Amino acid sequence: MTRKMTSSHTPMIGVFDSGVGGLTVLRALVERIPEASYLYFGDTARLPYGSKSAATVAHYAVGAVRYLQDRGAELLVIACNTATALALDEIKAAAGVEVIGVVEPGAEAAAAASRKRNVVVIGTDATISSHAYRRALEARNVAVREKACPLFVPLVEEGWVEHPVTEQVAKIYLAEAFSPEVHSDDADVLLLGCTHYPLIKPLLRRVAPEHVAIVDSAESTALNVARHLHVELPPSSTQTKNEPSPVRHIKFFATDSAEKFRKMGSRFLGLAVEDVVHVDLKE
Amino acid sequence: MTRKMTSSHTPMIGVFDSGVGGLTVLRALVERIPEASYLYFGDTARLPYGSKSAATVAHYAVGAVRYLQDRGAELLVIACNTATALALDEIKAAAGVEVIGVVEPGAEAAAAASRKRNVVVIGTDATISSHAYRRALEARNVAVREKACPLFVPLVEEGWVEHPVTEQVAKIYLAEAFSPEVHSDDADVLLLGCTHYPLIKPLLRRVAPEHVAIVDSAESTALNVARHLHVELPPSSTQTKNEPSPVRHIKFFATDSAEKFRKMGSRFLGLAVEDVVHVDLKE
Repeated sequence: MTRKMTSSHTPMIGVFDSGVGGLTVLRALVERIPEASYLYFGDTARLPYGSKSAATVAHYAVGAVRYLQDRGAELLVIACNTATALALDEIKAAAGVEVIGVVEPGAEAAAAASRKRNVVVIGTDATISSHAYRRALEARNVAVREKACPLFVPLVEEGWVEHPVTEQVAKIYLAEAFSPEVHSDDADVLLLGCTHYPLIKPLLRRVAPEHVAIVDSAESTALNVARHLHVELPPSSTQTKNEPSPVRHIKFFATDSAEKFRKMGSRFLGLAVEDVVHVDLKE
Repeated sequence: MTRKMTSSHTPMIGVFDSGVGGLTVLRALVERIPEASYLYFGDTARLPYGSKSAATVAHYAVGAVRYLQDRGAELLVIACNTATALALDEIKAAAGVEVIGVVEPGAEAAAAASRKRNVVVIGTDATISSHAYRRALEARNVAVREKACPLFVPLVEEGWVEHPVTEQVAKIYLAEAFSPEVHSDDADVLLLGCTHYPLIKPLLRRVAPEHVAIVDSAESTALNVARHLHVELPPSSTQTKNEPSPVRHIKFFATDSAEKFRKMGSRFLGLAVEDVVHVDLKE
């Protein structure tokens, strides 16, 4: 059931990810809904979810989501593509509040952007082999080509977001994804199905074919949450892009070192990551 | 206390790693000591240890090592550089049998190979920032330059072991490691401080300066175990390299999908990985 928030109420939004990647979703949320309070949970002791089975991911995600609810989250955003792809139904069943994952908003935005009804989606191995984006796009009558890009996450974490090696890797991956032999030469949208990828969006823009529009599921998810909360969007979202409004309440939980989270996190959030609490979740 | 095995006794050797990387150590062990029985534990549901804190790694490793002992392991090989670097003392304290990690044998072999008493060691972020190899080498009066190479593991797992991108990354990393500005131009040994790296040893051989010898801690650890067990080594170890003797007893345990372990594992072991049991370790 959807719980509608009135404009006078400031909702507490819980954002969950396996690590720091989901901070790109939090960043987009803060830009769209600066008046909300935020709790962010990064399950850094057990990342990456990408190499784990569906059962393991569901077990971890449900534990984290319960933790966020216990601390007052009124709306949950699953900012982890792998958790959304493999465990959204289990999370929804376990949660007593509205849950929004990254797959549906991303697929919706990609479908809306594709005139040719033909989309290429890229993500981690686990996200791609779950075929969650494929299902969501095909349900919207959009043809899909899926391509796993497992090196992008470590390249972003190495800080090589504008590096010749990353560009070479992107050329290899995108050449395969847009190869005419796989009948995706008609694709006119590239959907970024991983929260790390917004950091290499400028590089991907240069490498992707010119006629291809890039849709970012982090961005799409934030817009979806704003619509859900009936938040009036700023007249031009690009104006606020580089100057996020000051946020009053934002608190971070990490299952591994708080210090490491602080360090890596600020690159993804684009803001200093300060109030980090270490959490020890028993299995 | 060292428990000496007589040559008539076939010891049960337990090999522990966070994932499949330690299979390069198992491979070297099987080549040296084909008459032994082996248990291999890959904590694949909680990998990589490289990004986790020392306390988390110790907690996980001790649980896995107890599991191996419960199933009859008489000697434990910690084939995980991160676990050895961060938690060897805790593992030794918890184990009732001899424990051999990868750091000391690797450092010993590197020290023996370096005429200039100057070694470059490469590994994951966690292994390098633990400074375990630095301490082990400095205790042998060897000067050390440490260099973290976080992209090598994902490149090996992508299967790009002979790929131009991996060669480019190796050139960047090794140029930094052997840069004259860091006074390591005198280094004559490159120590591979990560179990994934033996798979790119031929590539590293091409990229590293010619005068530099490559020492592989997987190989060194197997030799150390053989010496410990008073195993007579084959007259020429290179003869057996590509034709490992048939092994009778070898059993695998993985905390995540057995199927995934089988698939990825055979590339690291150089043999088919068959008898895999999924294990659910509670924290």
